[in-house]
Amino acid sequence: MSDYRPPTEEMRFVLDEIAGLPQIASYPGFEEATPDLVEAVLEEASKLASEVIAPLNHSGDREGAKIENGVVRTPAGFKEAYHQFVEAGWPALPFDPAYGGQGLPSVLGFSLLEMWNASNMSFALCPLLTQGAVDLLQHHGSEEQKALYLEKLITGEWTGTMNLTEPQAGSDVGAVRTKAERDGTQYRIRGQKIYITYGEHDFADNIIHMVLARTPDAPAGTKGISLFIVPKYLLNPDGTPGPRNDLRCVSLERKLGIHGSPTCVMAYGDNEGAVGYLVGEECEGMAQMFTMMNNARLAVGMQGVAIADRAYRQALDYARQRTQGRPYGSSAGEAGPIIRHPDVQRNLMTMKAYCEAARALAYHTVAGVDTASRHPDAIEQERAQLYLVELLTPVVKAWCTDLGVEVASLGLQVHGGMGFIEETGAAQHYRDARINPIYEGTNGIQALDLVGRKIIRHDGATARALMARMEEFAQGLNDAGTKNGSCGPELATQLSAGIADLRRATDWLMAQASRDRVAVAAAATPYLKLMGTVTAGWLMAKSAMAAERRLADGNGSTLFLESKRATARFYGANILPQSGGLAESIVAGARTLTEIEPELLN
Amino acid sequence: MSDYRPPTEEMRFVLDEIAGLPQIASYPGFEEATPDLVEAVLEEASKLASEVIAPLNHSGDREGAKIENGVVRTPAGFKEAYHQFVEAGWPALPFDPAYGGQGLPSVLGFSLLEMWNASNMSFALCPLLTQGAVDLLQHHGSEEQKALYLEKLITGEWTGTMNLTEPQAGSDVGAVRTKAERDGTQYRIRGQKIYITYGEHDFADNIIHMVLARTPDAPAGTKGISLFIVPKYLLNPDGTPGPRNDLRCVSLERKLGIHGSPTCVMAYGDNEGAVGYLVGEECEGMAQMFTMMNNARLAVGMQGVAIADRAYRQALDYARQRTQGRPYGSSAGEAGPIIRHPDVQRNLMTMKAYCEAARALAYHTVAGVDTASRHPDAIEQERAQLYLVELLTPVVKAWCTDLGVEVASLGLQVHGGMGFIEETGAAQHYRDARINPIYEGTNGIQALDLVGRKIIRHDGATARALMARMEEFAQGLNDAGTKNGSCGPELATQLSAGIADLRRATDWLMAQASRDRVAVAAAATPYLKLMGTVTAGWLMAKSAMAAERRLADGNGSTLFLESKRATARFYGANILPQSGGLAESIVAGARTLTEIEPELLN
Repeated sequence: MSDYRPPTEEMRFVLDEIAGLPQIASYPGFEEATPDLVEAVLEEASKLASEVIAPLNHSGDREGAKIENGVVRTPAGFKEAYHQFVEAGWPALPFDPAYGGQGLPSVLGFSLLEMWNASNMSFALCPLLTQGAVDLLQHHGSEEQKALYLEKLITGEWTGTMNLTEPQAGSDVGAVRTKAERDGTQYRIRGQKIYITYGEHDFADNIIHMVLARTPDAPAGTKGISLFIVPKYLLNPDGTPGPRNDLRCVSLERKLGIHGSPTCVMAYGDNEGAVGYLVGEECEGMAQMFTMMNNARLAVGMQGVAIADRAYRQALDYARQRTQGRPYGSSAGEAGPIIRHPDVQRNLMTMKAYCEAARALAYHTVAGVDTASRHPDAIEQERAQLYLVELLTPVVKAWCTDLGVEVASLGLQVHGGMGFIEETGAAQHYRDARINPIYEGTNGIQALDLVGRKIIRHDGATARALMARMEEFAQGLNDAGTKNGSCGPELATQLSAGIADLRRATDWLMAQASRDRVAVAAAATPYLKLMGTVTAGWLMAKSAMAAERRLADGNGSTLFLESKRATARFYGANILPQSGGLAESIVAGARTLTEIEPELLN
Repeated sequence: MSDYRPPTEEMRFVLDEIAGLPQIASYPGFEEATPDLVEAVLEEASKLASEVIAPLNHSGDREGAKIENGVVRTPAGFKEAYHQFVEAGWPALPFDPAYGGQGLPSVLGFSLLEMWNASNMSFALCPLLTQGAVDLLQHHGSEEQKALYLEKLITGEWTGTMNLTEPQAGSDVGAVRTKAERDGTQYRIRGQKIYITYGEHDFADNIIHMVLARTPDAPAGTKGISLFIVPKYLLNPDGTPGPRNDLRCVSLERKLGIHGSPTCVMAYGDNEGAVGYLVGEECEGMAQMFTMMNNARLAVGMQGVAIADRAYRQALDYARQRTQGRPYGSSAGEAGPIIRHPDVQRNLMTMKAYCEAARALAYHTVAGVDTASRHPDAIEQERAQLYLVELLTPVVKAWCTDLGVEVASLGLQVHGGMGFIEETGAAQHYRDARINPIYEGTNGIQALDLVGRKIIRHDGATARALMARMEEFAQGLNDAGTKNGSCGPELATQLSAGIADLRRATDWLMAQASRDRVAVAAAATPYLKLMGTVTAGWLMAKSAMAAERRLADGNGSTLFLESKRATARFYGANILPQSGGLAESIVAGARTLTEIEPELLN
């Protein structure tokens, strides 16, 4: 077990240099996001994260959430920590001031989300789901619904859930069977939902469930799905929680990880039918969910970054303390900390490089959310939405969460035998991280979304614009070679090779688009990995250039900036070169899949 | 939860076509290993594995091994299954007939080891450790010691353990502090050992501990370590278990996986000192352990293959049964099994390709053990030992176990949300698989062993001989192009590119050998991965050619042989191309590590 302190210096660097927070702060409505405020927010949040939330991570895992007679009890300390979290006003930070929010940029909100999740993913899932409910209501709720629920959810006084999945309806949400029948101005909901995170708990006075259900004459599939607000307690005329609604938590799942968070099987309408309130119009549920889903997918991607960072810092601590064997260059018989062994350093640098690359990619993309909503120029808004947020959201979700698993596994490995023993805590990260590639759309679904909706639907223009932007940057990197000792030229060569691989794969993809949808689908996963690897490589190179500039200006800690530069170089020489193999597994590899029959899988 | 049936058709194919079992059966002493006997052995073992041992895997995980007042209880059914396993004579299969063994080839024994471990890794660890004790005694025990212990261990009536690790002595075995003081003809052992697999249990009447300890005036480090036989029960004059020795299991570890197997903290000599019997001479312990370790490392590599295969078959079953979404080419509204989705097929084919590649590499290497011990020509024996067994053992251990984790993770992913729920069983494989890259020498240690002891020490001759052999084969593959429709030429191109990458990396490695040991160490892990990827690629190509030959001859199931061919093509186009990135992370990547100071890891 190790302490956790969020890497605020690194977060600040990425916010400023990659996410462009200073520019975002110049957009109308974001004027309060001054450098001083950002610094204060990061420092204050970091305290709560490290002092209150992180210490409950291991104990929460051991104790787990419990259910008894339908009552769910979260692990010791969770409830009190949640109240502190709400009282400090953290949930409200990025939301609309008209409903109790603080109106700060999303990208700042996401950097806090990283902290909460790195500290304790089981705990942080509750506000993460609530944020989804807020997004839904803000975009699609009626004025009355907003007035009733929004402020309570934004402040965190109440919490929210997402009810999509049923046993037969997972990736195929259109297969939902839960019924909604009109009953006056409201609806009666009947059905079972599974995998409902924080579907029941002891944090708050009310839980607002957002439930997908099917009205009697709705068309089959996704087109016939409607979205309902189904509160645990129906509201009194004064807006306070009143009578209990007809819904309950039937049981909790016994899961691989995130033990501290209750994952509920929910039953709606066992008796008179649960009262639900329609959001928008009937049959608009799927479209509404998609608004929420983009943010939720970015949030899950950020969980990948978070768990990677937690695992990295824990492994780093261990490697500094654990003495074993004689490092190269030390005298006979003299043992040293394992961080001095080159192979351990490789594991740690791989973890560090993945953390920084994933963070850069995630913050870069989330910054687009702020640009898309607040840039003074409407064309720039649309551009950010289409070419940045929509294109890269599936990449952030899938690439960062795959890396979360990879980094957690490396962290466990650095611990040697101790890594396999639960008391160390490294194994918990390996277990917790494994949910991220699955929920909020599996990573396979993300890859299909990327190649289909985000690239082919736009005739490849989105991907080509990204590549053009990266190529331009790579060209500029080369010019940096005139400065003595810059790593620009070496990164330029590596990055250019990566972009060329991405271009080759994209050309192939677009050529297949009109003639072989199966080949496109068979190539989707390596294509997403390739785009993640190269795009993050670009941002790592950008970080290195910023670090060199700051070093020259004497602006920042030398050790930190040298480390940024060294990590980018490591990434460029050790991780970016994976691009060739990935491109090959698209261009040559997809056909080895499409030519075979499922029977050959035996 | 799914059933498990060992893939005997595949095992037989790999034994015949890759391991060369027919040739091994021609060596003196192996005459009994006729095709009929091999078939009967595989079929009979497969029954016990699937009907008795595999069904205890999930329940054993849930229940776990327990300790109460120093008595260890294995999960329900384990003890009875062990007795069936022993009564059927399986443990004795590959051992010396002079001591109750059946004298069959090691490679056949290892294929059974795959079955037991795929069925239930927690269960199979007990005989695996016993096998280590047998190897030690067979090579280094006195005639008297052999007479007392060997037959009981070979038959499995008693079990054995390996006691190396202490809290301060993990990878650095030389740091062992357990003391051994001479007391007449025997020794008194005092100290604590950790991570002792099956250090205490309820399977057998006696447990023979092989313990590393230090005599009073022994030199520091590995040179001062001696090996002792320390039985749980001292033997009566007639060889039956007599009085209890002064040793006990203090506690069991709470682990990430392999819950069914007791991992013990052992205390030796709390009272009068545990009685131990010296093996060989004082201070020979480390050298003796190395004899055992090679086999044990191959066995752990095989565990990687085993858990991968188990995870693959479970995911395959699930993908055939789980209906979700509309596959390409089916009509609107018609849902199909997820195996018909190309992205799921990619996951499954990746798993299948890794399983077959890892199995081929492992069986190929283990076959070398038989050649090294029984080939009629002493020069061929030495050649097999040096150029095959010693070179590739660390690759089998590390590459196959890394893949075990990767494949288990993919298998979990194929299950979607269900994969994260423990009752499904997919998560258990992900947890169980994670120990393999750690124990029996971490995979980092394997990589250092490969580049240092196995390649550089021989001036690169071992690696160059392997590459020459593969190049010759690739040349032959090209010639197969004259046959209509052969995949030979495409595999030749892919394999040649992989070998070229391996050659480039090896040249770099040998150039650094004399001038930069740190760079060599920093490159060790990607070098091992590269050698594994390319060498397994060669064996996959060999399998494809054998399958084509058998298809032409009508020798075997068409579906199976077509599948072998398709899997090799998938490997060649999707996995082999990783070689370029790996070579780059050696040639360009190692220097980005050696140039940085540990302080930059922050």
